[in-house]
Amino acid sequence: MAEAILIPRNVLHGCVVKALRAAGADEESTAATSRSLVLASELGIDSHGVRLVPHYVRVLKSGRVNPRPKRRIERRGTATALLDADNGLGHASAYAGMELACELALANGVGAVGIFRSSHFAAAGPYAIAGAEAGCIALASTNADKIVGLHGSARAFHGTNPIAVAAPVADANPWLMELATSSMPFNRIVAYARMGKPLPEGVAADAEGNPTTDPDRAAMLLPLGGLEFGHKGAGLAGLVTVLCAVLTGASQDDELIPMFRTRDLLAPGDREWQTRAERLTTGIPVDPETARSLGIAS
Amino acid sequence: MAEAILIPRNVLHGCVVKALRAAGADEESTAATSRSLVLASELGIDSHGVRLVPHYVRVLKSGRVNPRPKRRIERRGTATALLDADNGLGHASAYAGMELACELALANGVGAVGIFRSSHFAAAGPYAIAGAEAGCIALASTNADKIVGLHGSARAFHGTNPIAVAAPVADANPWLMELATSSMPFNRIVAYARMGKPLPEGVAADAEGNPTTDPDRAAMLLPLGGLEFGHKGAGLAGLVTVLCAVLTGASQDDELIPMFRTRDLLAPGDREWQTRAERLTTGIPVDPETARSLGIAS
Repeated sequence: MAEAILIPRNVLHGCVVKALRAAGADEESTAATSRSLVLASELGIDSHGVRLVPHYVRVLKSGRVNPRPKRRIERRGTATALLDADNGLGHASAYAGMELACELALANGVGAVGIFRSSHFAAAGPYAIAGAEAGCIALASTNADKIVGLHGSARAFHGTNPIAVAAPVADANPWLMELATSSMPFNRIVAYARMGKPLPEGVAADAEGNPTTDPDRAAMLLPLGGLEFGHKGAGLAGLVTVLCAVLTGASQDDELIPMFRTRDLLAPGDREWQTRAERLTTGIPVDPETARSLGIAS
Repeated sequence: MAEAILIPRNVLHGCVVKALRAAGADEESTAATSRSLVLASELGIDSHGVRLVPHYVRVLKSGRVNPRPKRRIERRGTATALLDADNGLGHASAYAGMELACELALANGVGAVGIFRSSHFAAAGPYAIAGAEAGCIALASTNADKIVGLHGSARAFHGTNPIAVAAPVADANPWLMELATSSMPFNRIVAYARMGKPLPEGVAADAEGNPTTDPDRAAMLLPLGGLEFGHKGAGLAGLVTVLCAVLTGASQDDELIPMFRTRDLLAPGDREWQTRAERLTTGIPVDPETARSLGIAS
């Protein structure tokens, strides 16, 4: 952010509120979205802070997002619920979902709320922090539009699928973990291109799925873990999709789910189950030392 | 595993049962441990499969692990419980904890069980799979002895702290994600040393905390994400510690927790909270375009 202007927090918050209100958002949506974006900016998560206001103004004005949603809660179990966000701004439903999840957790020991028919909620951290402030160890996550390719694939498969967890700490700010399950967000690739700098190894691939360090050729991101260990980031991204989309019925990236069953891409666990099938036929390889210790070989 | 011997699954299972029984383990511990280890071997997770039997035999015989534990369940909330494993083999308490967590989840929508006074449970995957077989999306995790260093630190901080999740899939094996939050397990470093091959970048550090690709100089592991993105793996490892040790009171690696408060190592979230404190004083940097769109600058 060259030439950034420093703006006092409350002034900035007031401007964000004004912009969202002017775009037609109701008071609760305005309050939730400005709370989330300004906190992200306070915390230094600039890619998901007030920078996004023009985006939300656009989608509010275009009608793509409902400025006056009527949310609906469906209780599912003693400790679980589904929240229909009525296509409103994702920040309001995320805060509402976290508040309900914390109520359920405080009453039952653990609670979970799935949200569907929602929209982009910016950073995941603010909702986890809200949960920690309510006294809970809180996890917030969302699946997202696909931009992350699997190793050697020419098609993006997962979104950046972030996971944030916050935990209360006595007399201190909450413990906070926030990560995208890709190595870096795409807007950092763009920043590298602008600076004319090569990318680190293993963060991006070109349109054919070949890893590249040339930011101008980067067409998709690679999962956390890079070339050697990207299956781990991909597994975490898949976990987010299972929890946030498969489990709730929310699937913005609706091509993603059937792809789990295609033959050209290994889903998490496929390799292990294949190995098991082979080993149940061929036998299980055991090193001589273990075999000896088990009395199988001498 | 050069020169491995292929052994039929049932023969191998019988040998493991016999070895554990001979070491004094009671019937339930024997059944659980052999079930877990043989499944890991079937799935190709050899580092955490039957190879470990001699280890368990040793700790059973030495008295470090209780061969005839009396587990105790403490109900905490409608949907939660704590399980005191009475220092038995970790496999038996992990299966028992997962079974109880699934009962709680099937009754309440979600359930969680924390286990303390337990011991090494080998791979996490078998317990997640057991949960999926009971009809749940199941997560199994454990903190572990510290062997993973943080970037630039000369001391190991986290264990390999694995996370496994399994989810039922209709007419197919469960979806399965299993990962250590380090890039690789230490026994793979040893395998590289044996082969005289250099390590990939960013998986290990020497005794001074400097990253090394020389397997003979490797004194600790680096977190998933390597040199550039290791803060993400470290964050995940920290999450495991919060859930498995801080929350349950189980802390084998008891030096780990006070280290969260030291000043020389940034805990997850510290950087963000520092940024926030600064920004609340200096103002929040906003790029000119966003500032214009908010009516702050012209």
